[in-house]
Amino acid sequence: MGEISCSNGITDKNGVDGKSLSLSGYRKSCWYEEEIEENLRWSFALNSILHTGETPYQDIALLDTKPFGKALVIDGKLQSAEVDEFIYHESLVHPALLHHPNPKTIFIMGGGEGSTAREILRHKTVEKVVMCDIDEEVVEFCKSYLVVNREAFSDPRLELVINDARAELESRKESYDVIIGDLADPIEGGPCYKLYTKSFYESTVKPKLNPGGIFVTQAGPAGIFTHTEVFSCIYNTLRHVFKYAVPYSAHIPSFADTWGWVMASDSPFELCAEELDLRMKQNIKGENKYLDGKTISSASILSKAVRNS
Amino acid sequence: MGEISCSNGITDKNGVDGKSLSLSGYRKSCWYEEEIEENLRWSFALNSILHTGETPYQDIALLDTKPFGKALVIDGKLQSAEVDEFIYHESLVHPALLHHPNPKTIFIMGGGEGSTAREILRHKTVEKVVMCDIDEEVVEFCKSYLVVNREAFSDPRLELVINDARAELESRKESYDVIIGDLADPIEGGPCYKLYTKSFYESTVKPKLNPGGIFVTQAGPAGIFTHTEVFSCIYNTLRHVFKYAVPYSAHIPSFADTWGWVMASDSPFELCAEELDLRMKQNIKGENKYLDGKTISSASILSKAVRNS
Amino acid sequence: MGEISCSNGITDKNGVDGKSLSLSGYRKSCWYEEEIEENLRWSFALNSILHTGETPYQDIALLDTKPFGKALVIDGKLQSAEVDEFIYHESLVHPALLHHPNPKTIFIMGGGEGSTAREILRHKTVEKVVMCDIDEEVVEFCKSYLVVNREAFSDPRLELVINDARAELESRKESYDVIIGDLADPIEGGPCYKLYTKSFYESTVKPKLNPGGIFVTQAGPAGIFTHTEVFSCIYNTLRHVFKYAVPYSAHIPSFADTWGWVMASDSPFELCAEELDLRMKQNIKGENKYLDGKTISSASILSKAVRNS
Amino acid sequence: MGEISCSNGITDKNGVDGKSLSLSGYRKSCWYEEEIEENLRWSFALNSILHTGETPYQDIALLDTKPFGKALVIDGKLQSAEVDEFIYHESLVHPALLHHPNPKTIFIMGGGEGSTAREILRHKTVEKVVMCDIDEEVVEFCKSYLVVNREAFSDPRLELVINDARAELESRKESYDVIIGDLADPIEGGPCYKLYTKSFYESTVKPKLNPGGIFVTQAGPAGIFTHTEVFSCIYNTLRHVFKYAVPYSAHIPSFADTWGWVMASDSPFELCAEELDLRMKQNIKGENKYLDGKTISSASILSKAVRNS
Repeated sequence: MGEISCSNGITDKNGVDGKSLSLSGYRKSCWYEEEIEENLRWSFALNSILHTGETPYQDIALLDTKPFGKALVIDGKLQSAEVDEFIYHESLVHPALLHHPNPKTIFIMGGGEGSTAREILRHKTVEKVVMCDIDEEVVEFCKSYLVVNREAFSDPRLELVINDARAELESRKESYDVIIGDLADPIEGGPCYKLYTKSFYESTVKPKLNPGGIFVTQAGPAGIFTHTEVFSCIYNTLRHVFKYAVPYSAHIPSFADTWGWVMASDSPFELCAEELDLRMKQNIKGENKYLDGKTISSASILSKAVRNS
Repeated sequence: MGEISCSNGITDKNGVDGKSLSLSGYRKSCWYEEEIEENLRWSFALNSILHTGETPYQDIALLDTKPFGKALVIDGKLQSAEVDEFIYHESLVHPALLHHPNPKTIFIMGGGEGSTAREILRHKTVEKVVMCDIDEEVVEFCKSYLVVNREAFSDPRLELVINDARAELESRKESYDVIIGDLADPIEGGPCYKLYTKSFYESTVKPKLNPGGIFVTQAGPAGIFTHTEVFSCIYNTLRHVFKYAVPYSAHIPSFADTWGWVMASDSPFELCAEELDLRMKQNIKGENKYLDGKTISSASILSKAVRNS
Repeated sequence: MGEISCSNGITDKNGVDGKSLSLSGYRKSCWYEEEIEENLRWSFALNSILHTGETPYQDIALLDTKPFGKALVIDGKLQSAEVDEFIYHESLVHPALLHHPNPKTIFIMGGGEGSTAREILRHKTVEKVVMCDIDEEVVEFCKSYLVVNREAFSDPRLELVINDARAELESRKESYDVIIGDLADPIEGGPCYKLYTKSFYESTVKPKLNPGGIFVTQAGPAGIFTHTEVFSCIYNTLRHVFKYAVPYSAHIPSFADTWGWVMASDSPFELCAEELDLRMKQNIKGENKYLDGKTISSASILSKAVRNS
Repeated sequence: MGEISCSNGITDKNGVDGKSLSLSGYRKSCWYEEEIEENLRWSFALNSILHTGETPYQDIALLDTKPFGKALVIDGKLQSAEVDEFIYHESLVHPALLHHPNPKTIFIMGGGEGSTAREILRHKTVEKVVMCDIDEEVVEFCKSYLVVNREAFSDPRLELVINDARAELESRKESYDVIIGDLADPIEGGPCYKLYTKSFYESTVKPKLNPGGIFVTQAGPAGIFTHTEVFSCIYNTLRHVFKYAVPYSAHIPSFADTWGWVMASDSPFELCAEELDLRMKQNIKGENKYLDGKTISSASILSKAVRNS
């Protein structure tokens, strides 16, 4: 509401000299705040709130945060942050696509953000990707605002379907080399619980895999205190449905936790770090930022505490 | 990063049903946070960050807050909020302009936001307003974004000067019916300290008042614990420079405090509530939202604790 | 987990020099945080959490806060803070007891904290105070920990009853000079709503007042945006039950709002500021911190915006 | 300040029914808040503030937090939390003591909390532990309040010295099988910077190691974005001073980051996971919670991004 220069200075109404305040660092004043758990909060200073919207299913926001860049938030929960989403998406996609000898057709359950498709489409062997997400507006939102995924969204190999992933998968006649679950965690008693049951994997997923096919799914937090919520269950379910199941994990800074994935198949996962590195070089366009053969191998060596449960 | 409809629901990756979550109220996640004092914080949920900028003097932001509407923030301090800035600006402007029998020429020290000019220009007697602010970019920012002040900024009676208010006032030959201080609080030892001294009022302000002229200034927080910082000092200084000085205050919700102003003159302030109401009706275009005669009268009855110091 | 002196310094594991950090002011790290409204937060730096407990009715905590001293918090809402509870309690008690020519018997509905009784017992005319609160454990908690009220709790003129205030009042045969409501605000549709109805005041409260008796009640927030929640309603109800009703308000810093009270009687409230000051001198032991005659008088001059609704 | 039962309910002054509020979950109101970086905050709901104190060197607090149990905070930075300090301390101590064929004498630089000593003393081969911390009051504070370390503090094999670790190490004539750095991170230009230099390791540490001796130090954050601050430097320094240096890391939930350590020696680290498991069984009293052979082996396989720098 006013200011005055006095000799050689300038002051705002609240009485602090402008520049020296900036220098001595007044407090960042806009924050995004998330409750990781009821008693635990994680807050990022904000540059701006780029876009907000409401779909029939959820509230959605794109924030520009100081510590983690652009961040996609759905219903008050961080989904992915510019500076480290590559850890999540490289981990979700590449181990399965590298272990598969020749992945041509891929089905993504969910994945509307587009980053999962982007990583898949880097594989030269891939001929077709079906991405099936239920929320059209989230997909449109991400298409418009996530510049990094624009190329993927317009790749002719990508077929985008708006539908319930289970219904879509069941209705389709063809099967796939790799099926990827980029879906919500199951909540006990919640509507998706059955999506993570033996019966869903057995009756819906497995029949749609080609021989030698691989199923991989994000599997929720895999931290020393948080892995029992979802991660252990998914692993224990999958290893009863498939002959081979490999749980693995990585620390994702913007999630303030270690995250988990499980891949499963009736064919064994036999490649060592060196062979994975070789395939990466041959099959993947561009360079990974997070994963190489050694990282993949060690990601599946869980800590004693996690392994035991 | 994905979602799936399962029977009749929808879930985000973090495992909470979208809609029921909205209903049961997930936490607001973007906040503006201000340190009112070192140990006291005041936080508003944000709709958006409308604009941010940096001038040579200060950082400036226009936020859209849930509790208080659009809010102008300079160097991390709230300057004015849409829903209650009228309390501040009506209180700063009208008591002096009503007590003056015929205010024609007004000088504003500071006031770049435009709201002080807006309230002054509602007075039918006013023929000329000089607004002198040092930060051109703040003025341009407010001109562009504070829709409510657009009319004021384009009023032909307004002369806008970018300069140090003291230098400008001293260099001008004409004098004014009312001079209004819409400036930063003095900080002990700070560069503006001298702006609130006896000598500044005596040598710079008073000589530029026409006979019967009134000086009024915002005077910082006037709460029961905060009035001693600035408010008491300004009052005590002004009552030694002018024959009459009247301190008054009002609670401004978005400031989380009671705010103070002091008006001073060599002519007495003699109007009672009814006379003030009459003048308001005659002289002011439109209706006040906060002030009427009774409110003006009682605003100067400070509480026992404040009065005594 | 370790530190080392190196030449002339000391550093903690997180790599910041201890003393210089203290000097340059590292951030206060423990906070009490209250949601004043859904979109508005108010946070105090903490020295310590003195006591916490759970009664059959509510959660209770006594905090030592940096800005407001010891603070009593019930169910996550600040009830009273050491440094400014006198504003609330002086305002609740003294106007009614001063306007009454000779208040001897007082009934408090609620008031388990003890501060209301403390202020009442300062009046030399008072012979008997009944305090009726439903939550025995809150009363015991306050008795133990609120040192400032100890004397009041052991005053022989105080009769403490644990009961539903309405039931107690209805079952008692005697009537009182002043009845004080130090109760929860009514919530629409909530269980106490009826306590603020015409019928409650008419059938339960009024019959228990001696001739010339006064009823006074706290009446919730009375700020420019918040007074319509409760304050206006209570005033409008009371002025239909009693011949005279006087609403008044005061800014309470720790509540971040202006608070309201209403006193009502079938006898007029006629004392002016000077007469109130005289009675204060004669009847009240010790000095008020907040209220004097002028403050009482001006407290009932509400701002234009509040008055009109 | 009061409550009343009305028919079948109870309400506090702020108008919300006590129990239903508890059930519907009113917000946790006391929080510990830490700035992990300038733009990133991490907040824990508090049960209580157990103890606070000030030493000549630093401010110290013991908090009871909801998500992480008792937490030791020095100068506003979390040092260690009850529920996961074992990850830090097992990782700091056991890899070095297991790789050493017969560790008898150990020197801890820092370590005043006592947890490092506690883990060391679980090794049956250990005959003598010197813990050298500069801040006597921190040591006394931890001795009094960290129940879990009481046994360690009173173990006759522990010699506690209050001194500058470098001075102490230099003044001692004997040398050690393992030297452990449980010290502050070096800050650029700060007083400890030289403690992490080649010259310190070469002239002070290495000469005090017995033949086959191992040096291990905490090495700061080792996350994908944070490892370049300190972790890479320490590793790169140590591998020029010792023939063999092994960096390793683990995610510590309460630190919201992956943490790093480096062990170094002129003898090679040759044990595989199975041999480490065997030694653990033979040498360590009780069971580790975090570390086993596989965890140790994989902890040193850093991710691609971290490894490359």
